Amino acid sequence: MPTSEFTLIYRYFSALGRGDAVDLSVGDDCAILRLGEGERLATSVDTLVAGVHFLEDTFPEDIGFRAASIAASDLAAMGARPLGMTVALTLPEADDFWLNAFSQGLAAAVADYDLPLVGGDTTKGSLTITVQVLGALPLDGALLRSGARVGDEVYVSGTLGDAAAGLAFLSDSELCSPAPDNAGFLVQRFNRPRARLELGRELLGRASAAIDISDGLLADAGHIAAASGVKLVIDPEQLPLSAALAASASPEQARLWALTGGDDYELCFTLPAGESAPPGCTRIGQVEPGEGVDCGMALDIPAGYQHF
Amino acid sequence: MPTSEFTLIYRYFSALGRGDAVDLSVGDDCAILRLGEGERLATSVDTLVAGVHFLEDTFPEDIGFRAASIAASDLAAMGARPLGMTVALTLPEADDFWLNAFSQGLAAAVADYDLPLVGGDTTKGSLTITVQVLGALPLDGALLRSGARVGDEVYVSGTLGDAAAGLAFLSDSELCSPAPDNAGFLVQRFNRPRARLELGRELLGRASAAIDISDGLLADAGHIAAASGVKLVIDPEQLPLSAALAASASPEQARLWALTGGDDYELCFTLPAGESAPPGCTRIGQVEPGEGVDCGMALDIPAGYQHF
Repeated sequence: MPTSEFTLIYRYFSALGRGDAVDLSVGDDCAILRLGEGERLATSVDTLVAGVHFLEDTFPEDIGFRAASIAASDLAAMGARPLGMTVALTLPEADDFWLNAFSQGLAAAVADYDLPLVGGDTTKGSLTITVQVLGALPLDGALLRSGARVGDEVYVSGTLGDAAAGLAFLSDSELCSPAPDNAGFLVQRFNRPRARLELGRELLGRASAAIDISDGLLADAGHIAAASGVKLVIDPEQLPLSAALAASASPEQARLWALTGGDDYELCFTLPAGESAPPGCTRIGQVEPGEGVDCGMALDIPAGYQHF
Repeated sequence: MPTSEFTLIYRYFSALGRGDAVDLSVGDDCAILRLGEGERLATSVDTLVAGVHFLEDTFPEDIGFRAASIAASDLAAMGARPLGMTVALTLPEADDFWLNAFSQGLAAAVADYDLPLVGGDTTKGSLTITVQVLGALPLDGALLRSGARVGDEVYVSGTLGDAAAGLAFLSDSELCSPAPDNAGFLVQRFNRPRARLELGRELLGRASAAIDISDGLLADAGHIAAASGVKLVIDPEQLPLSAALAASASPEQARLWALTGGDDYELCFTLPAGESAPPGCTRIGQVEPGEGVDCGMALDIPAGYQHF
């Protein structure tokens, strides 16, 4: 018996739509959200395709949480205050078990990020999840990619390369041989990345440029360099590595993942010299005249994730 | 050779991102939009899947225009002022011909609706298009489904059933036998529906309830009835039919399409008795105590489009 779109939406998602900024949630033609006085809207959209952006056998809870985190990470990279999100879900069949688990993962993200689910669409087809995030920024501020200046210092939050190592482990790669505890940590870093929303808001008005690391540090730092018209010089010896990663791969492989592995969703940002960084962030280099990213190594890798 | 996501986005879509409300368009982690003073945000998302929501052999121009129109129609149904949209595009391969044609269709919608394309994502997979629309509403107003009151009159804009007839013709159904001119009109009504944005804004503050007709008049009028706690009584004899539809199908079939065919994207709305309707709208019934939609016929049809 067919389950209607309306039944699906209401059964699983309607409880996730409450929030301070939400005047109207799922159930009419549009959701309605209020911005504060003197605020403007920040928005971004990200799609995850099964078998491309996550392994086919990923738990639906993790897919839900990760899809929301990846989209919310763009709000973090702008320094935006989260308002809400919409989720467009294409799935092969209305599988109650799958939907229930997926909605649990979404619910965790809604609660963690204070990012209510205000709208959505469900359609039939290959498993694809598109999350649109909505946030608020002051009229006169935003963390852009284009503000890095010569003399600024380059920072990253957290640790890098963990998600790439976790994905390698999930893919049975010999490059990553973690002990059980470390395996759990690295896999979680891939499956349940955390959007750095609080850090992004803390950096607003302090950082000269910022981006979230989705495609790998070198690729994403390259976007700051290109948008700002400068060169980012990065010292690979300074890259923050987790103990779990350091214990699970060769030093060379760990560093390579930290430089080129995507999916960590940490923030890379530049601060004017002398400006102190928030706790948990590491200085990894400085901004110089020129272009591109210089990490002192010749790496034969594509510039970020290639979708085609 | 792989074409990067960035190249794709910039080549085809970056020219479509300019607009009065757009502070920052494609190229950073988020787009930034300004609402006017005393406005709030309306947003909706719609996904089209190849083979489900459009025929596999649809021209990419039409897919692009139609995807934008379907999403924009939700802004029309709320009475919202268009601000911008984002498009998440999943496609099997980076086909220059396809992308160019698709972007032409999107560009037509951007221009027609004054709805700049401010962001997007491109991914590899089965052809799926998700459009998120962003609009502005006054703090104290919106066309909701829930405001219909006993004694109000029920109206629709334009003509109904054309898109269903066009789809029937495209699907080689014997139920629709149009002359060439009429075939062109009916097919256009399916492939290039127009969002009634101007009408929606005109109805704001006048109509007591509104919805766009995407799933068929009976199904969508049923949403007004349910949300408002009333019965909508519709006279099938009053349904506005185009000359093209009337000339291409039996009177019974034409009426059935007008009642149950989706995809017209006209507006169905209720006005307090005595309130005059905008030009091009037709009174089709009235609001009475009770529930559901009564069209004086027993129709054995599903209540709207069933995605599963």
